[in-house]
Amino acid sequence: MLSSAVCSFMLMKLGVNSGFSATNCVLASPAVLRRQEFLIRCLQGYSNQGDQKKLQEVKAMGEPNLEAAAENILRAITPTLDPSKHKGQAGKIAVIGGCREYTGAPYFAAITALKIGADLSHVFCTKDAAPVIKSYSPEIIVHPILEESYSVRDEDKKSISDKVLAEVDKWMERFDCLVVGPGLGRDPFLLDCVSEIMKHARQSNVPIVVDGDGLFLVTNCLDLVSGYPLAVLTPNVNEYKRLVQKVLRSEVNDDDAIGQLLSLAQQIGGVTILRKGKCDLITDGETASMVLLDAVGGRVIYFLEGKRFVAVFTSWARQLVSSSDRNTSISPRNPTMLGCIAASTLLRKAASHAFNVKKRSTLTTDIIEYLGRSLDDISPVS
Amino acid sequence: MLSSAVCSFMLMKLGVNSGFSATNCVLASPAVLRRQEFLIRCLQGYSNQGDQKKLQEVKAMGEPNLEAAAENILRAITPTLDPSKHKGQAGKIAVIGGCREYTGAPYFAAITALKIGADLSHVFCTKDAAPVIKSYSPEIIVHPILEESYSVRDEDKKSISDKVLAEVDKWMERFDCLVVGPGLGRDPFLLDCVSEIMKHARQSNVPIVVDGDGLFLVTNCLDLVSGYPLAVLTPNVNEYKRLVQKVLRSEVNDDDAIGQLLSLAQQIGGVTILRKGKCDLITDGETASMVLLDAVGGRVIYFLEGKRFVAVFTSWARQLVSSSDRNTSISPRNPTMLGCIAASTLLRKAASHAFNVKKRSTLTTDIIEYLGRSLDDISPVS
Repeated sequence: MLSSAVCSFMLMKLGVNSGFSATNCVLASPAVLRRQEFLIRCLQGYSNQGDQKKLQEVKAMGEPNLEAAAENILRAITPTLDPSKHKGQAGKIAVIGGCREYTGAPYFAAITALKIGADLSHVFCTKDAAPVIKSYSPEIIVHPILEESYSVRDEDKKSISDKVLAEVDKWMERFDCLVVGPGLGRDPFLLDCVSEIMKHARQSNVPIVVDGDGLFLVTNCLDLVSGYPLAVLTPNVNEYKRLVQKVLRSEVNDDDAIGQLLSLAQQIGGVTILRKGKCDLITDGETASMVLLDAVGGRVIYFLEGKRFVAVFTSWARQLVSSSDRNTSISPRNPTMLGCIAASTLLRKAASHAFNVKKRSTLTTDIIEYLGRSLDDISPVS
Repeated sequence: MLSSAVCSFMLMKLGVNSGFSATNCVLASPAVLRRQEFLIRCLQGYSNQGDQKKLQEVKAMGEPNLEAAAENILRAITPTLDPSKHKGQAGKIAVIGGCREYTGAPYFAAITALKIGADLSHVFCTKDAAPVIKSYSPEIIVHPILEESYSVRDEDKKSISDKVLAEVDKWMERFDCLVVGPGLGRDPFLLDCVSEIMKHARQSNVPIVVDGDGLFLVTNCLDLVSGYPLAVLTPNVNEYKRLVQKVLRSEVNDDDAIGQLLSLAQQIGGVTILRKGKCDLITDGETASMVLLDAVGGRVIYFLEGKRFVAVFTSWARQLVSSSDRNTSISPRNPTMLGCIAASTLLRKAASHAFNVKKRSTLTTDIIEYLGRSLDDISPVS
């Protein structure tokens, strides 16, 4: 049932142990009420019925100060800039994607990682895509190693696949996170190679964020991520629908959005799922979170589906959670959950900045330009 | 021992003959003390012990006004803009680097040379890299002449190598400085060709700045630079470690950072070494210098490891030192030392500007944008 699920996931969500339960009723300030009403509108997006009872119960939740708590998470996992650190310590990200047809998505994934503070950003793509992706920015290291069926004879497939894998393996241990899927395309031979790359990443305990065509691959071969707690799936509406159909053998049910999402994550063995939408819903099968987007219009929301910095934040969160010297009270403790919450929060901020300036013509590039400033608003460097 | 070495190299460093010795103790202003304390913190970065005695001795040095002296050097070697000069007189730089995998580093090296005032900037790279590097900027002259093993049959190697060399030789006499290594990669055939290019540059008395994969080449074949006073090596942490292991057959010893650096330069026959780090340490085996970076956070420091404008400043310093009509009292007199000090100083300024604006999202591209303004702050054109 949504009503109680919402209440519990809201409280779990940001590690806020406010002591409120669904039965508490607190007189809220006008600003709080506005936020709650926005929250309710968002929740309605996941419901076809939106009955009065549900709204009342959500209103009764009091003031969890969601935004501040989400920003606290972002602040907690963002590393300090310390002159004693050397290059690479703030994150080395690899994007597996980019083919003859698509070059924008892997570029966006790689450049956003750098713009929020990762040190190194690699792209592994096809030979056709590489010069184009390189030309977008000299800051990204682009490896032209993947091949599509059209350029490979059947008898060469095994040797080429081995070569691709060997090339990625040379780097694998150095990566803090892999992003699999942006602009990957659906060529069968290419997807076979990428499956092997994912298996190796998993053996090396490297977190994997799966996006775009990577979700097509994973939906058809759940074993690639099943039971891997360092996997993050970031489906949009259609990708989520296919995933639900495949895994739960049912249709998307927005009357029980949270319950269904929890089931889905559990069924895939505790992977983290970030269901992208006007509210981002995030779960690892145990806890669930929601991050709201300001009402900046649908345009910004769907332009930013990528949530491309989940990778960086996840690798930072892993560092934080595993470091014994930083006594932190943040919750949840799952680094992939923290990574998703932080990514959603930063995205909302940057999108808001960009939309205020660019309005209707806001593009992904514009939002990327506001990432640094938005992160600094929340987690200032000095 | 670091303690005395620091004192002496500090006084030598910027040509400041202040008359202070390590035994002088001068009451310093708060600003001076702040600078000294920063200096001490930096030095501690090169020491695992940082004992009190050392700190006392450094404090006892008085006020060498390091920053002003470094800026004086930069001002002295930066040529005036004189309408009677023709194109090329402010420096012609060639970068040897750029392969299928790496294209960003040679571009950064070439564009920074132009941005601080060099007239012409060439890149000699592989055929795959050339269109990409060209696409970054129409300002750079890019020669697609290098070849990697995968594209060369064994029986063609000799003729291709000769052809590459002939092509570079056509230009060699015109270059004021070569930068060898940014994005060069490690292909054996390519490195063989580059070795030959370096030999020819040396025969023509062209200064050579060695960076990135060029240091991998040089560490394995020290003869390429050994005894060549116009060679500058610019190792980062890992490259320095390999160099020390190879040349001194020991590990890096940061308790005697200056002493070890001096030994290293002496062992390689008086080349200049710029050891990149939170403080840049510079030596030619006779004198040693240090340039501090403002505490703008690790990110900026390691993003700027390239110190890519050593080449331009070295060629300017050569002009200054060799010109009889400019009676200058700057010291040291070694143009490669002057080039390194000027490059480190400008870098610090530009990085500081960029970081103040871009914060955590500062990328190399951003810092390059501030080079012109930073140079003009120190050495205004009018």
